[in-house]
Amino acid sequence: MSDIEIARAANKKPIQEVGAKLDIPNEHLLPFGHDKAKVSEEFIRSLSEKKNGHLVLVTAINPTPAGEGKTTTTVGLGDGLNAIGKKAAICIREASLGPCFGMKGGAAGGGYAQVVPMEEMNLHFTGDFHAITSAHNLLAAMLDNHIYWGNELDIDIRRVVYRRVMDMNDRALRQIVCNLGGVANGFPREAGFDITVASEVMAILCLATDLADLERRLGDIIVAYRRDRTPVYARDIKADGAMTVLLQQAMQPNLVQTLENNPAFVHGGPFANIAHGCNSVVATTTALKLADYVVTEAGFGADLGAEKFMNIKCRKAGLKPEAVVIVATVRAMKMNGGVDKADLGEENVSAVEKGCPNLGRHIENLKQFGVPSVVAINHFVTDTDAEVQAVKDFVASQGAEAILCKHWADGSKGTTELANKVVEIVEGGTANYTPLYPDEMPLFEKMETIAKRIYRADEVLADSKIRKQLRDWEDQGYGHLPVCMAKTQYSFTTDPNRRGAPTGHSLPIREVRLSAGAGFVVAVCGEIMTMPGLPRVPSAEAICINDDGLIDGLF
Amino acid sequence: MSDIEIARAANKKPIQEVGAKLDIPNEHLLPFGHDKAKVSEEFIRSLSEKKNGHLVLVTAINPTPAGEGKTTTTVGLGDGLNAIGKKAAICIREASLGPCFGMKGGAAGGGYAQVVPMEEMNLHFTGDFHAITSAHNLLAAMLDNHIYWGNELDIDIRRVVYRRVMDMNDRALRQIVCNLGGVANGFPREAGFDITVASEVMAILCLATDLADLERRLGDIIVAYRRDRTPVYARDIKADGAMTVLLQQAMQPNLVQTLENNPAFVHGGPFANIAHGCNSVVATTTALKLADYVVTEAGFGADLGAEKFMNIKCRKAGLKPEAVVIVATVRAMKMNGGVDKADLGEENVSAVEKGCPNLGRHIENLKQFGVPSVVAINHFVTDTDAEVQAVKDFVASQGAEAILCKHWADGSKGTTELANKVVEIVEGGTANYTPLYPDEMPLFEKMETIAKRIYRADEVLADSKIRKQLRDWEDQGYGHLPVCMAKTQYSFTTDPNRRGAPTGHSLPIREVRLSAGAGFVVAVCGEIMTMPGLPRVPSAEAICINDDGLIDGLF
Repeated sequence: MSDIEIARAANKKPIQEVGAKLDIPNEHLLPFGHDKAKVSEEFIRSLSEKKNGHLVLVTAINPTPAGEGKTTTTVGLGDGLNAIGKKAAICIREASLGPCFGMKGGAAGGGYAQVVPMEEMNLHFTGDFHAITSAHNLLAAMLDNHIYWGNELDIDIRRVVYRRVMDMNDRALRQIVCNLGGVANGFPREAGFDITVASEVMAILCLATDLADLERRLGDIIVAYRRDRTPVYARDIKADGAMTVLLQQAMQPNLVQTLENNPAFVHGGPFANIAHGCNSVVATTTALKLADYVVTEAGFGADLGAEKFMNIKCRKAGLKPEAVVIVATVRAMKMNGGVDKADLGEENVSAVEKGCPNLGRHIENLKQFGVPSVVAINHFVTDTDAEVQAVKDFVASQGAEAILCKHWADGSKGTTELANKVVEIVEGGTANYTPLYPDEMPLFEKMETIAKRIYRADEVLADSKIRKQLRDWEDQGYGHLPVCMAKTQYSFTTDPNRRGAPTGHSLPIREVRLSAGAGFVVAVCGEIMTMPGLPRVPSAEAICINDDGLIDGLF
Repeated sequence: MSDIEIARAANKKPIQEVGAKLDIPNEHLLPFGHDKAKVSEEFIRSLSEKKNGHLVLVTAINPTPAGEGKTTTTVGLGDGLNAIGKKAAICIREASLGPCFGMKGGAAGGGYAQVVPMEEMNLHFTGDFHAITSAHNLLAAMLDNHIYWGNELDIDIRRVVYRRVMDMNDRALRQIVCNLGGVANGFPREAGFDITVASEVMAILCLATDLADLERRLGDIIVAYRRDRTPVYARDIKADGAMTVLLQQAMQPNLVQTLENNPAFVHGGPFANIAHGCNSVVATTTALKLADYVVTEAGFGADLGAEKFMNIKCRKAGLKPEAVVIVATVRAMKMNGGVDKADLGEENVSAVEKGCPNLGRHIENLKQFGVPSVVAINHFVTDTDAEVQAVKDFVASQGAEAILCKHWADGSKGTTELANKVVEIVEGGTANYTPLYPDEMPLFEKMETIAKRIYRADEVLADSKIRKQLRDWEDQGYGHLPVCMAKTQYSFTTDPNRRGAPTGHSLPIREVRLSAGAGFVVAVCGEIMTMPGLPRVPSAEAICINDDGLIDGLF
């Protein structure tokens, strides 16, 4: 059966029953249909004195076209923990609507380790991204409106840095000239649209701890500069209150279920390049109050995703992860070892061995955060015993353990061993989470720290303009912020083709951006596309409601 | 108490109890929170063999700044019918998000005749407008993408007629140049955004009878023309299937409740100028299967709203209204009689008498559709008995009846007389609905018919280019479509300052547009703004969540 066939055959429970597993009373579950609900803000506030459960991060090797199955493993581990008698919940990100109409839509997990309802999670879901789009664009409209009515704040219209957003892959809007058509339509200027997941409002929603923090952060967004280069904030435009009202409902985390009817929080979805790529802090902290084990994941591979999870999300939200699961596949190891995608079906133990150093470096890197890790080998049907053993042997040589997982085919039955190992690690109590750098380290040094200790680059290249910009931000009081690296996810370097565990490279920083509301400084290393386009034949052409009333073509 | 205070103090019932009044089973109510639900498509399909209830239209005199209270009266009449023992439901339009951030948000009704939850109905509600925005913009993205990848359909990029939409008052986007920035971003061309309620997709959703009809109509949208002037349809871009998927949930009508816990369908909200300005056909036909009496309203005054309701919505959906309520207020009569808004507090019977001909003409006009009418005088606290009597006397002189209604202050108790009168009219069985013109009448003659018989214009002015365009559309098979007049709502003429019942004017048609998917030809008479702007001090500046967690400034 395909993923979608399995998802459609799911024996879903009413969402109230799923909530009951976490002792959420019915009146605090705001239903969206019968299988989705938001957990009320009021209920979340009532939990503040409760003890936290244990937080487990699922991350992965550098992604390859062979796929690694990070979400699938997150779901599988959550189900596995429930199966061995732990009260566990998972926390993952929401899907973006736009890309579903370009390439085939992303399911939430795969095989027998999925979150449902799949179709709705890939479409409007509970409307969070639409709310973010509205809040983002309200600020943009109010900004241009301020300029139109006399520009009392003295904004330099050439220095408006706040763009608009749309949850759509629409390259036509990347770069536009707006306010055309004469006096009634404003002052013409260059502008553009990003995709909604790239919105700073998205990153803010995912890092805010409550509505008051959300409003404060929204007010902190820098929208433009004056001719004297002083910043103009969303607060100056008086948009922060109305934006918060638009986001009030979206701030409440969404509850759905796995195929095994276990609770899954699906909330927020910031880009993993120019933002931190994790589900919302509110969802994670709420889940920690309600479950004994919370399994969450971070975007891309561990060099980007886990690093940002540790240095941005955990630092800012006061989270203390106690175990890390690094997902690897035999196929991805083979690709890291130089095998083409077309040849992945053939046994090739030496290629597996050759690719393993990529995994090894991630294991090594994660130790620096003080959190013990275990490797999950996400089993694929063509893997041979000898290949699996090669990964296990390599991991053992690194002083860690690799466990074969068959959740794709078997659901929780395929992750019993992994779940037991995670419990053993957590109960061992050896975790001692520490971020990689202190708040007070200068911004450029933070970038160097990540580049050298995580990417193993020899040096960071940045011209004097960038260095001066960083010093200016430090002078303005932004020096304590963490940095958010925007780099290719396919390699430790900035060259997506350099797989494995390269050394001897440099990290060139092309540009730096201040996300003052989200609370990080972005270092752009390479081309970052914030508004994707559609392919020659978009998947949308084949999407329709079929004769049985089911959605075809979305997956 | 203010409207918002009354709304907040509402004793809301769980939406399942409201649905039960119409015998909608719980499993066919898709809840959105505890006080909103969509009625499932499956349930709606199951009703097709049921008998229809009676349809009552609420319309009004030409609007004045004094307000007429059309929605308030719709709610009050619905509650009044329930109070006298009839199984009644109301059908009204959804509010648009964008304008709420400009001027104060529109409540759904007022005083003790309101629909709740008020805040959510003015914000994201059940996400219908967001779904429409997404579906609309997906087609736009696919259109530009088609051009980008080689333009196989040979679209003339100067003749792209399909714009983008956003549910926001954003004048900066009215007119733009998109696809800038070089080869990777497409071919630069002029473009623009309308507000979502002006989208043809909105009009389509509101006129479609089911999902198959929706998909067919979406495919019929004309997006551009070739150099040889032949049209390119959404179907050619292969966007119709995916748009339908995006709209599947939005097609299901929303159920909420009045303050008296009676069922209210709130669904769809097309512009009342370039579109027909009525709630969805699906909501109205569903309500008719479930209730004995369905009270619905049409946008603007009767010259625009009722005319389009009769000639477009009823004609196309096979509806047969049996009674019309024309809402008038003493204050509006005085303004029609030449009194300034500031002086409305003073008794002025002669001004009332002077303004009454506006009402008189609407009474006369409605007779042409074969549906009997009654006038509802929506009582305001400053109205004097003599003023009310003047309206009653005038209406009696026209062979009709005017009934004083106090639903704003008293809820259903204030509309008992009106409700009884409506039942009397319906049970009298004198209604014999007939549209004003037959399908086969040429398009220009249809416009003349409305201008002469409804607006009482002497002639229609249109240059030869417009007349030729209409003939071309007739040749292409669009001659059978009804026409949709886009004219100021403040006057029978195209001059908003000419109140009362003017004669001797001409109707100039500036432009005609073909909404081939919605199924009407728009005659633009005067300036029509399809993307509003924000005022100097937008209401958004004062909107926030207050210390009690309630939304301030939205109303």
